[in-house]
Amino acid sequence: MADQGKGRIEQFSDGVFAIALTLLILEIRPPTLDGDADTGQFFAAMVGLWPSFLAFVLSFFVVLVMWVNHHELFALARGVDRPFLFANGFLLLMVTFVPFPTALLARFLGTAAGRGATAFYCGTFLVTGVAYNLLFFSVAHNRRLVRPDVSDEELAVVRRAYRLGVFVYAGSVGLAFWNAAVGLGTCVSLWLLWVRLNYKRRRSHDRSPAEER
Amino acid sequence: MADQGKGRIEQFSDGVFAIALTLLILEIRPPTLDGDADTGQFFAAMVGLWPSFLAFVLSFFVVLVMWVNHHELFALARGVDRPFLFANGFLLLMVTFVPFPTALLARFLGTAAGRGATAFYCGTFLVTGVAYNLLFFSVAHNRRLVRPDVSDEELAVVRRAYRLGVFVYAGSVGLAFWNAAVGLGTCVSLWLLWVRLNYKRRRSHDRSPAEER
Amino acid sequence: MADQGKGRIEQFSDGVFAIALTLLILEIRPPTLDGDADTGQFFAAMVGLWPSFLAFVLSFFVVLVMWVNHHELFALARGVDRPFLFANGFLLLMVTFVPFPTALLARFLGTAAGRGATAFYCGTFLVTGVAYNLLFFSVAHNRRLVRPDVSDEELAVVRRAYRLGVFVYAGSVGLAFWNAAVGLGTCVSLWLLWVRLNYKRRRSHDRSPAEER
Amino acid sequence: MADQGKGRIEQFSDGVFAIALTLLILEIRPPTLDGDADTGQFFAAMVGLWPSFLAFVLSFFVVLVMWVNHHELFALARGVDRPFLFANGFLLLMVTFVPFPTALLARFLGTAAGRGATAFYCGTFLVTGVAYNLLFFSVAHNRRLVRPDVSDEELAVVRRAYRLGVFVYAGSVGLAFWNAAVGLGTCVSLWLLWVRLNYKRRRSHDRSPAEER
Repeated sequence: MADQGKGRIEQFSDGVFAIALTLLILEIRPPTLDGDADTGQFFAAMVGLWPSFLAFVLSFFVVLVMWVNHHELFALARGVDRPFLFANGFLLLMVTFVPFPTALLARFLGTAAGRGATAFYCGTFLVTGVAYNLLFFSVAHNRRLVRPDVSDEELAVVRRAYRLGVFVYAGSVGLAFWNAAVGLGTCVSLWLLWVRLNYKRRRSHDRSPAEER
Repeated sequence: MADQGKGRIEQFSDGVFAIALTLLILEIRPPTLDGDADTGQFFAAMVGLWPSFLAFVLSFFVVLVMWVNHHELFALARGVDRPFLFANGFLLLMVTFVPFPTALLARFLGTAAGRGATAFYCGTFLVTGVAYNLLFFSVAHNRRLVRPDVSDEELAVVRRAYRLGVFVYAGSVGLAFWNAAVGLGTCVSLWLLWVRLNYKRRRSHDRSPAEER
Repeated sequence: MADQGKGRIEQFSDGVFAIALTLLILEIRPPTLDGDADTGQFFAAMVGLWPSFLAFVLSFFVVLVMWVNHHELFALARGVDRPFLFANGFLLLMVTFVPFPTALLARFLGTAAGRGATAFYCGTFLVTGVAYNLLFFSVAHNRRLVRPDVSDEELAVVRRAYRLGVFVYAGSVGLAFWNAAVGLGTCVSLWLLWVRLNYKRRRSHDRSPAEER
Repeated sequence: MADQGKGRIEQFSDGVFAIALTLLILEIRPPTLDGDADTGQFFAAMVGLWPSFLAFVLSFFVVLVMWVNHHELFALARGVDRPFLFANGFLLLMVTFVPFPTALLARFLGTAAGRGATAFYCGTFLVTGVAYNLLFFSVAHNRRLVRPDVSDEELAVVRRAYRLGVFVYAGSVGLAFWNAAVGLGTCVSLWLLWVRLNYKRRRSHDRSPAEER
């Protein structure tokens, strides 16, 4: 079970997740104010930065949930091979890409280009959802890399959730063209669903909350 | 005691702390000088950057102290569960956020908006203090995740310190609106107190300074 | 076989690879649009960013392939010494440098300076190829640091591939001065070749795809 | 010997070193060129960036040497305590600070403010040298934290080198005010000396180059 290669790739991926998460803050820039701007004007400028704050918080939690999902997926595999490595590389590409659509959302939310920026943002997670499906497929197709102690039922639960994800993300892209807030809300709702999914899968495994991971 | 999940989350959190700490320097930008500016004008520009240097040093040490406290908190727990993970995620959000209020402080300290920027800076740590209390609560409430060898007395010491922290941070926000230097000083004084707290808790455990961690 | 020093240097190098990979996204900047720019103008601006997207994706995969190659090289060595450390330091210098030629490519591809920027980009990987040859030489010269279980035939395969790399990169620099797309294509083709090389080397070692690393 | 606390701090410090090293490249910005600038003008602009390239390469190797020295110092200690942690925190502050003087050097080398920027750059390493002496003192004073198998002779060699470092750095600051190139050259020469020092210390320990770390 102690697969050196798998552990190394997991650690490298963890590093990429942690760095992408922390780079998100670079998208929020201090506002430009007159030299004699007072406290009131300062906080008015802070309030005006709400798209940046919103984009930062949303992307932070989506990357965090992606990180948790990534580990859940790795936990299903008894080892890694070439297709798995390629799918993982594609997924990491999408993870490192996240700061850019986040910056777009921060800049254009609330302007006339806001729906376009939101559609682009949701579209990024649509592609990320595809990447997760590819990675899952590389593990679960014909149980290629699946650990013997993982049941077919468990695989089916994960497969359904990942497929649902792609459909919901695709829907959120369409909705964003109509209304930015609705599109963004649909995107976020999926992260909540994924969080919940992990919870249920864990509950079926663990006895005591203290020992679950 | 060797909890794989806890160790992984601790390592990921460590990465986020280390990156947030190192990104702080990006907030200090080289000054713009005339092409024929001489040594005297160069050092005058350096002196003019004092708010950047101050903000960098203060935030560096606060993140470092937060990192130490984070580990102290993890050391109390025998494992992790869902509420713990959410509280930790909220805390990491605040850690990655620190470079932004630091940049605000660097830009606006010494201007008319300096009090507002200082209040925002202290306010960030007020929310961070709340995050620490939540994380502590997720561990210590009814001793949910507390390691058996940690005494109730030890928990009480930490609880008191964390609660005090929230009050002092709230006070520093109020003071900052009145006087930036006083507010900032109050904020910093708390970090010193936390450093001291850790020291006392360690002393009660360890015999020889060489073996303490 | 458990060489503490080698593991530490490998972990440090991994960190540098992961950070360089994730910093690449900072090169893609949100476009500047009029306040009343609509969805159509937004996506027109996105399309106009194609050099940034192309540069990001290409550099992402080249750094990822470099990372894999780096580990393959480390796997040949039974330990590290001074010349190895210097060669590795030189290689890490080139890895951290990659975001700069990537930014050049993003900015100048499609302009009159595009061939120059592409030549510079390919030239960076020419120097990186030299660095890999030096690192390989530090391991394989007179089998200085080669693990006893690595055959001379295996070393010869790697040596040929690394030497070929330098020639192809040199060719891609020359071609870039004539035509940017051809030069860039030649550069990329080599990464595909390296990916393939790793595959063949692994196949000769491993029995089951599930257990290969 | 397996000190959990020491290992954790070493790993955190390694992360800070790796990130600071990789952030250095952000200081080199693509030049601004006319839309119709040709290959010749592109390479002329590249040549004009020589201060950035020089600053990047110098700082890269100084941080790398600092990283090696940091580990050599940790290797002397059998554990960590409070003064050690504070000295290490101060040292990490200086490591994260390095990108700023590097950016100053890149911007002002070759201008009238070049001597000032070089003095500031060398001054940063003077303070870093003091930090190394403090860290060494926290370990070696009365052999507080020294591992039993480290001889007094070995400590004396390191102590002399660290003290020499402070004097040479102080000299390089003074020389930089007179001539930037001479000051910078003196600074760099010290890094070469430190590299050499590590070499000699290692040689006295290890038998075979392959097994040295």
